[in-house]
Amino acid sequence: MNLANRDLVSIDDLSNGEIEALFSLADKMSDSTDEQSGLCRGKIMASLFFEPSTRTKLSFEAGMLRLGGSVISAADIGASSLAKGESIADMAKVVGSYADIIVIRHPWEGAAKVVADYAGIPVINAGDGSHEHPTQTLCDLYTIRKERQTIRGLRIALWGDLKRGRTVHSLIYALARFDATILFCPGPGLEMPVHVLRRLSTEYGGEVKSCRDLNQELETGPYPVDAIYRTPSSPHQLAMLPDISMQVELNAGVDALYVTRLQKERQGPATKEQELNKGYPVVDKKLLRGKGFRKALVMHPLPRVDELAYELDADPRSMYFKQAAYGVPVRMALVALLLGVKEITIPGEDDCFAPKAPYPVYARDSGVKCPNMNCVSNQETEAKYIKPAFAIVSRAPLTLRCIYCDYELYPRYIASSEWHQGKVENKKYHSASSRFARNIKLENLIVFTSEEEAQAQQFKPSSYVSQ
Amino acid sequence: MNLANRDLVSIDDLSNGEIEALFSLADKMSDSTDEQSGLCRGKIMASLFFEPSTRTKLSFEAGMLRLGGSVISAADIGASSLAKGESIADMAKVVGSYADIIVIRHPWEGAAKVVADYAGIPVINAGDGSHEHPTQTLCDLYTIRKERQTIRGLRIALWGDLKRGRTVHSLIYALARFDATILFCPGPGLEMPVHVLRRLSTEYGGEVKSCRDLNQELETGPYPVDAIYRTPSSPHQLAMLPDISMQVELNAGVDALYVTRLQKERQGPATKEQELNKGYPVVDKKLLRGKGFRKALVMHPLPRVDELAYELDADPRSMYFKQAAYGVPVRMALVALLLGVKEITIPGEDDCFAPKAPYPVYARDSGVKCPNMNCVSNQETEAKYIKPAFAIVSRAPLTLRCIYCDYELYPRYIASSEWHQGKVENKKYHSASSRFARNIKLENLIVFTSEEEAQAQQFKPSSYVSQ
Amino acid sequence: MNLANRDLVSIDDLSNGEIEALFSLADKMSDSTDEQSGLCRGKIMASLFFEPSTRTKLSFEAGMLRLGGSVISAADIGASSLAKGESIADMAKVVGSYADIIVIRHPWEGAAKVVADYAGIPVINAGDGSHEHPTQTLCDLYTIRKERQTIRGLRIALWGDLKRGRTVHSLIYALARFDATILFCPGPGLEMPVHVLRRLSTEYGGEVKSCRDLNQELETGPYPVDAIYRTPSSPHQLAMLPDISMQVELNAGVDALYVTRLQKERQGPATKEQELNKGYPVVDKKLLRGKGFRKALVMHPLPRVDELAYELDADPRSMYFKQAAYGVPVRMALVALLLGVKEITIPGEDDCFAPKAPYPVYARDSGVKCPNMNCVSNQETEAKYIKPAFAIVSRAPLTLRCIYCDYELYPRYIASSEWHQGKVENKKYHSASSRFARNIKLENLIVFTSEEEAQAQQFKPSSYVSQ
Repeated sequence: MNLANRDLVSIDDLSNGEIEALFSLADKMSDSTDEQSGLCRGKIMASLFFEPSTRTKLSFEAGMLRLGGSVISAADIGASSLAKGESIADMAKVVGSYADIIVIRHPWEGAAKVVADYAGIPVINAGDGSHEHPTQTLCDLYTIRKERQTIRGLRIALWGDLKRGRTVHSLIYALARFDATILFCPGPGLEMPVHVLRRLSTEYGGEVKSCRDLNQELETGPYPVDAIYRTPSSPHQLAMLPDISMQVELNAGVDALYVTRLQKERQGPATKEQELNKGYPVVDKKLLRGKGFRKALVMHPLPRVDELAYELDADPRSMYFKQAAYGVPVRMALVALLLGVKEITIPGEDDCFAPKAPYPVYARDSGVKCPNMNCVSNQETEAKYIKPAFAIVSRAPLTLRCIYCDYELYPRYIASSEWHQGKVENKKYHSASSRFARNIKLENLIVFTSEEEAQAQQFKPSSYVSQ
Repeated sequence: MNLANRDLVSIDDLSNGEIEALFSLADKMSDSTDEQSGLCRGKIMASLFFEPSTRTKLSFEAGMLRLGGSVISAADIGASSLAKGESIADMAKVVGSYADIIVIRHPWEGAAKVVADYAGIPVINAGDGSHEHPTQTLCDLYTIRKERQTIRGLRIALWGDLKRGRTVHSLIYALARFDATILFCPGPGLEMPVHVLRRLSTEYGGEVKSCRDLNQELETGPYPVDAIYRTPSSPHQLAMLPDISMQVELNAGVDALYVTRLQKERQGPATKEQELNKGYPVVDKKLLRGKGFRKALVMHPLPRVDELAYELDADPRSMYFKQAAYGVPVRMALVALLLGVKEITIPGEDDCFAPKAPYPVYARDSGVKCPNMNCVSNQETEAKYIKPAFAIVSRAPLTLRCIYCDYELYPRYIASSEWHQGKVENKKYHSASSRFARNIKLENLIVFTSEEEAQAQQFKPSSYVSQ
Repeated sequence: MNLANRDLVSIDDLSNGEIEALFSLADKMSDSTDEQSGLCRGKIMASLFFEPSTRTKLSFEAGMLRLGGSVISAADIGASSLAKGESIADMAKVVGSYADIIVIRHPWEGAAKVVADYAGIPVINAGDGSHEHPTQTLCDLYTIRKERQTIRGLRIALWGDLKRGRTVHSLIYALARFDATILFCPGPGLEMPVHVLRRLSTEYGGEVKSCRDLNQELETGPYPVDAIYRTPSSPHQLAMLPDISMQVELNAGVDALYVTRLQKERQGPATKEQELNKGYPVVDKKLLRGKGFRKALVMHPLPRVDELAYELDADPRSMYFKQAAYGVPVRMALVALLLGVKEITIPGEDDCFAPKAPYPVYARDSGVKCPNMNCVSNQETEAKYIKPAFAIVSRAPLTLRCIYCDYELYPRYIASSEWHQGKVENKKYHSASSRFARNIKLENLIVFTSEEEAQAQQFKPSSYVSQ
């Protein structure tokens, strides 16, 4: 299978079979050194980090150099073209004409997609704001596979800041695709966002069960479980007795405990940081004595701050430095594949392609904007050429998802271009939950998030709305 | 022809024949890849960017890597040796002992010349303040040549910020040398500086015609032409009827429209930026429908901000991303030549060497300083070893040009070392426009920009001055 | 001799024989180019500069590239992992899994030792705060050896800021090991620290003679000599007549005058910088006309500011640009040795290994901290895993030396774990100068810097103290 000229913006850009085949190639990357050291001779990687990075940047660059390629790097790029007001699309086109592959980290959600759209060469997302960080997910999965020989059907507990960690969001979608059961153990106020949970159940077919209403005993247990996600293939025989089932889950133990750092740099200035810090759960020897963690791999994307005690470093379950080290062979395999200097064979049938549902896209210029102010589509320099666009992931309730940053939008008002036929006097809008909404053909659909927005487009409330 | 160990500080460091031969070599650089990838094996480029850069830095580095060479780079160099108070001459000597070639960008005008003077290895100016950016000019000319098969006898309109763009200043001297006709279309308040215009006519032999006094009809045309420069070889049969001639020029159309960005970062803090922004001319589809632009290549050194509409990106006349892409083969050719790993044959006679007139140099320590406060000769760290020095480009009116930054100086008072023979009582100064001025031999000439300056050197006004 | 997998944190990590053999290898590095250019093929150097650097960073990188290796570099690393609160130990472990050798510069004293302790690959200290800069010392010695054919038995004058220059501290220990006589010529208020002088006499066996009390004549001589250090092997026949001896020393001349810059960036904000600047001694032509400097090499680690006049650049005695240039072959030799791709033969017997005395280490958690607030052991992120530890370099007076930054500590109170046997009521502390102190076995020793510290550990003053 040839992955040449593909991009890796989201972990969903790779099918399950491709991920597993990539891991087989990564195994060879750490083994041999002679053949691989000439694979990328004459190839150039552009390493564009608009946000600081040690681990990701250095492991990509080390990987490229170990493949015999070379690297051009714009470390001060934030201060550079951006300062002159250049768009990232322009930057992508230009760098695309210098290099053979681009690795980009950027503070805006969706930035990597824009670069991929314009560069004309393979682009790897090394983190776009709070959105995705797919190569970290590959390293995470690869580490588990090295230790457990499989990445299918795992039981994983996610620990800490589940709200803003891009690492975690990329990871759970991948885990879900490989039939994992996921236990969410967030710090206080750092629960997994609702849209992520909904996406898990709607797109990956599993079931998310909140644990908030569980008995007191559970809440005072070794760790506060907030919710559990079960893939459809997991046994659900105890589903009718949720409390007992939950208890069982905990007693069964987990394959891995995935710890994350409090993402301070993504907090708004107004957040009461100290309060968050205070209640942030710490993983230490005492916690790991719990029955549920007896065989758990302790994982962390690093850097750690205080949430993972140094006393664990010598514990054989600790995997975090291995995760970092595997960054090199995993990224070598990825780069070699996207540059087309290596091909992979997908063993058997590729049973589960990425669930990139071919949702219909809403791109009408009706004034609707992505609600995420950090989305690339909301930036002044980018709005010159990007128009907001959304996947319509559900008709009822009407739900749009930004194609750049995956934020969801729930339009409150709708109209149809068929109704008014261009005549201003016929321009009316209805409530999105009204019976009219269901009957509008997708190609005629017009949506608004507020009455003001509708009226700015010269629409008037229908008699139902205006009542 | 061997260009080994030469520097490229100004576009005038290359003769016309050398430029064209370099372009022939650049053609081969984009074609083949096998031979060239070993040309610079074992060679090191020092990439010293004291100002942010994406395009120029990355294309130089990509070019060097594609030649099989390697790069050392000091991205944070501004915060580094400069912070410790080191002179750029010292820095140049040291880096010159580590690398084989230096590429330097620096905010001070003349900095690249100083580095070239001290490094002992080939030095390429990648932009020195508002002064020159010769490799950008090479990319511009190369792009035109690719599209028009020639760079001789072109008609080029320059658009936007003609006052501060180093890109544009390097470009027009080169265009003039290749017999171009140049139309100046500046934004309001951003006209080409007078010294540049005068230099065009005095050194390149052409004629600059201001369009300010033209009839109203012209001013309301598709773009406001401020002045036209015609090389001596252009036909001037209509010169006696300037108004009509001008009309003809416009109707004839241009080969290229060279658009520039408002150089905000070079504005003083007191400049009313918003006002400039408001009146800044925008190049868009509508403008390009004008008769004069029917076949015009649309060029821009990038980054663009608002002056060039995104809607033009798909237009086949748009050349700006090609300009950027050609940066790699052009810079590969240049580096290979200066490192002496390639030689070029100049076809036929090299008809027009760079007009670096062997002007006499005034370097007497009479208190005269370059009027450009951003000139390298006026910096505290550099004044320890650099003495101001000026080319005497004209005796009447007496005109000195800084050898570092090309700023001009018009001394108002003169004296002769022959007059006083070292006796203080004979030290007298005269007006620079007096009849005495013409008779002073160059080796005896002493100049002052003010009476205070003269008196500080213990000169007294002659009876003519003191009247 | 194989130096593979060794670190160079302090100049004392290399024996005299190893230094001389390294220099022989460096000679070959500047001579040939064919063989060496493949020595480090496939090897990666991580260049981690947490402080700005031009010279050191670029010469390390150039050296690695000339050996055929490659470089990954984190120029903005200060803003990166540190900003996220990561410890340098974690960073070291991670980078140690990406690269084959680490070069690190860091503002904290002792940081390079920590990186070496955790990286698992060879680590080179490229400057840790005011502590050491061993490769600069190697370049300095190599330059002298190139000019004088030996580095043994030299007479060296050290000039300028002897208080804070890490360069100078590494250098004098090395010079002492090679039997040098050292004359200290500090700027006012910038004298060599007392602990450095004491270490010279206690560990390197020589004799430090203060010149403060010398006759007036000497003080008004060409340069103010503050102290002289003589190695034991130097002739001391005039030692009974110190004043005369001193005069003789000065008249004999020096082999090298080592000038240093005022280390402004290491000054506290409260230092009266301008005052220091004012009295800072300048080395110029006039000074070098002095008899003592007739044959002296003029050395400087660069960058210079005002302390070394530009007029000396053409003087054949000026060595400072050679020192910088030798940085490449010296660092090439070092890197090749630590990576194990080259071995060296130490000619004859290695007469003087580094005097790393196997001092007993005090690492008891009694509340004692390194007095240097810039020491790595006092940093919030590092104190999570590092415990303070000290070499006990003297029992009377009781002197502890921080194993990270070499700062000394003089505990005022002591106790013994044998006395109290864990019983709180028996926990008593005595004065460190009391007769009890000498009798405590090292394994039982407990030290305190203050009574508060002792009482915080639940110790009470003995009746002797409380009197």
